[in-house]
Amino acid sequence: MTHSQPLLPLLAEAKERVAGELHRRLHAEGFVEIRPSHGCVFRFIEPEGTRLTVLADLSGLTKQAVGEVADDLERLGYLERAADPADGRAKLIRLTPEGRRSRSAALRIMGEIEAEWAERFGPARTTALRELLEELTGRAGAPAA
Amino acid sequence: MTHSQPLLPLLAEAKERVAGELHRRLHAEGFVEIRPSHGCVFRFIEPEGTRLTVLADLSGLTKQAVGEVADDLERLGYLERAADPADGRAKLIRLTPEGRRSRSAALRIMGEIEAEWAERFGPARTTALRELLEELTGRAGAPAA
Repeated sequence: MTHSQPLLPLLAEAKERVAGELHRRLHAEGFVEIRPSHGCVFRFIEPEGTRLTVLADLSGLTKQAVGEVADDLERLGYLERAADPADGRAKLIRLTPEGRRSRSAALRIMGEIEAEWAERFGPARTTALRELLEELTGRAGAPAA
Repeated sequence: MTHSQPLLPLLAEAKERVAGELHRRLHAEGFVEIRPSHGCVFRFIEPEGTRLTVLADLSGLTKQAVGEVADDLERLGYLERAADPADGRAKLIRLTPEGRRSRSAALRIMGEIEAEWAERFGPARTTALRELLEELTGRAGAPAA
């Protein structure tokens, strides 16, 4: 093996660097107190709202752990709980207008970071990275959000 | 934007898939109860031992969070606490022989996963992925562990 280090820590560190940069820029734009740990909600929440148990399943975290993140985001004004129209006893979690603004800003910033990579590493290499990650995760060909 | 989704969730999902596969294979080899959350210790611990505060700094977690992972790994027999020769009042965390065996197995398994990617996606694409991640994280040219 002539590898400098295994792919897993490389992927982990790349992800942490992008997340760190995203959060620095979100804070600079006034979306304060959003932290990488909040990603388990922002990454999976649907526009019309999502049940806590679904977020827990998708993120691989416990319902309690996601519940704590949801409590935190509710306290910060990014998230609210509402009755589920499909089941009056169940609650949906959904973004407030401020939560939707922060999510839009995050999507724009991530696009900016990718454009900076294309400039730094070349568009062909950046596209190749994206395509391999999409194949690997089975996300190839998914429609734009 | 014609992107299917931003790079951050793609990187996060790729990392989680590799981590999931690694842990399935570790369990199959008898290294039971090792979980992805234990990575904050395995990823950064030095052969001669490492202070808890250093692991917290490197992993970006709180000292309390890393301490809970260390307690867990100590209970499972993968880790032990020892006096720091450089400061008798400080403690070093270091792997037990079983912890070192699990780490060796993890490194071998990650190499096997990368070899499978090279077969699935082609060696050129897999090498290009590694090289871009190494440049991105500043790990290019680091010596083999």
